[in-house]
Amino acid sequence: MKYDIHRASEALKSYEDILILTHALPDGDTLGCGYALCRALRALGKRATVQCSDEIPKKYSYLWEEMDEQEFEPKNIVAVDVADPKLLGKKLRVYENDIDLCIDHHISNLLYAKATLLDSDAGATAEIIFMVIKNMGVEIDKYTADCLYTGISTDTGCFKYNNTTSRTHRISAELIDLGADSAEINRIMLDTKSVAYLELQRLALESLELHFEGKCAIVSLSKDMFDKSGTNESDSEGIAALPRQIEGVYVGVTLRERAENQIRASVRTHKPINASEICKKLGGGGHFYAGGCKFKATLEESKAMILEVIEETLKEVNI
Amino acid sequence: MKYDIHRASEALKSYEDILILTHALPDGDTLGCGYALCRALRALGKRATVQCSDEIPKKYSYLWEEMDEQEFEPKNIVAVDVADPKLLGKKLRVYENDIDLCIDHHISNLLYAKATLLDSDAGATAEIIFMVIKNMGVEIDKYTADCLYTGISTDTGCFKYNNTTSRTHRISAELIDLGADSAEINRIMLDTKSVAYLELQRLALESLELHFEGKCAIVSLSKDMFDKSGTNESDSEGIAALPRQIEGVYVGVTLRERAENQIRASVRTHKPINASEICKKLGGGGHFYAGGCKFKATLEESKAMILEVIEETLKEVNI
Repeated sequence: MKYDIHRASEALKSYEDILILTHALPDGDTLGCGYALCRALRALGKRATVQCSDEIPKKYSYLWEEMDEQEFEPKNIVAVDVADPKLLGKKLRVYENDIDLCIDHHISNLLYAKATLLDSDAGATAEIIFMVIKNMGVEIDKYTADCLYTGISTDTGCFKYNNTTSRTHRISAELIDLGADSAEINRIMLDTKSVAYLELQRLALESLELHFEGKCAIVSLSKDMFDKSGTNESDSEGIAALPRQIEGVYVGVTLRERAENQIRASVRTHKPINASEICKKLGGGGHFYAGGCKFKATLEESKAMILEVIEETLKEVNI
Repeated sequence: MKYDIHRASEALKSYEDILILTHALPDGDTLGCGYALCRALRALGKRATVQCSDEIPKKYSYLWEEMDEQEFEPKNIVAVDVADPKLLGKKLRVYENDIDLCIDHHISNLLYAKATLLDSDAGATAEIIFMVIKNMGVEIDKYTADCLYTGISTDTGCFKYNNTTSRTHRISAELIDLGADSAEINRIMLDTKSVAYLELQRLALESLELHFEGKCAIVSLSKDMFDKSGTNESDSEGIAALPRQIEGVYVGVTLRERAENQIRASVRTHKPINASEICKKLGGGGHFYAGGCKFKATLEESKAMILEVIEETLKEVNI
């Protein structure tokens, strides 16, 4: 069943002993939403707590440091920013059939919960949680504002991406007025890098190749590079944005060797090149500007295969 | 004389044949302000044009591509985002004593113009120009909105820095509603890098050293690195932000060799380390979080000198 803001707020106000579920490999949006909603429900005199299947990286600790632990048997369960029950992760999947309400902004949401508040125009689920909390009549304090600002800033690339709307900015303005420490949050979330990540970035830049008169840039991360820098695949998400950022590049590719003969490719494009079309030809998929596919081959073989498809594609669109 | 928004708007409405001056080494704020104000004055039936001492980088061309050239003998002169007449650059300094109105957000503005509209709370001068244009009763069209959004986004690090206020967000929300193509502007301004810049970044990462249990990070850019990568000193501004971004680092230093035995150091810090204190001890200066100084020495000698001062400073604050 689909709920609107008002109905979701009414439902939440009727809940007791609420367990809030975030997605695995947690990010600023799912955590910011979880802790903001938890604070709001507690402000209404309810017991509420947040859980995640994975360990939460230490940098997020400011999201909950003002909160006590509460232990109770949950009566109601809410999921935030979780598009698919699979994303709950191992520990929390036991709850997948008992979720009363899911609040999310992913258009791909599988509507697996008993009720879903879905707004795919929201740059972050935190925008929706902001409106829900206001609708519940709960005052947003400084800590809740910090949580919601974290969700919005991290999911919109600090207002850079095209999921940022005027509403995103208006809500952020309110959150800043309510005390959100925006500059410090952005410093922690966006401007703090590990030495290991920078070493991986250096190795990535070393592997950078340009093809087809500079219209395609490709970066190759070998297993050895991950080992040498002390990073893992999840650290390389930031790297995947890099090749497409180069002036004149229409197709940016990042190849990652997960194990011998297991290569994952991330493809990012600019108009008029369709990333998902390229990836589909190689057994993968995705969206217009971002896609992915896998190879059972060496890095060099995978590179040759994907470059062949990209060459065809560039010829077709004649740029 | 200091003007408020209303008085500045009235003055502008009384002006004819207006020459708008931007600062040398132009950035998104001075140019965005210049072209936005130019469009607004033309919308009032006036002749207006924008000038800059330096050549304007091609990436900014969308700011004026909708505008015709106009040639006329200026009757009134306005400077935007120019804190000091020196910053007008060689070509435009001839006008420095004839500037009727300066609109700026730099607290350091020397008040050199006949009248100045100064608002140092504004994250970008574009925020002030937005208010002035509204006050003049001119409708902000899509192209003007693009110009103003460009100024705001580039001067606030895309809303990341602590000069971003709730007003910055509210104005940006209005500009997006008026048609500003925010995501595309951010792509061009913030997410486009040259291969040469990336090569310089790779070399910078190669030179990265950590000192004092990781509390200080230092990057050394030799003349040779600039030559090898085909970059120049101005390309290295982005690099200067890098060392301080490392987890656990309180002092980030970037050394640049401009010529033999001519080294420029940029120092960026986090609380409680005062960058300007470090630089003052070496004959330089700056602000709390960012300072600079110069050495007549080799890169290695300069590094040793600055590390000595940093070691003392770290001991003093006992972190």
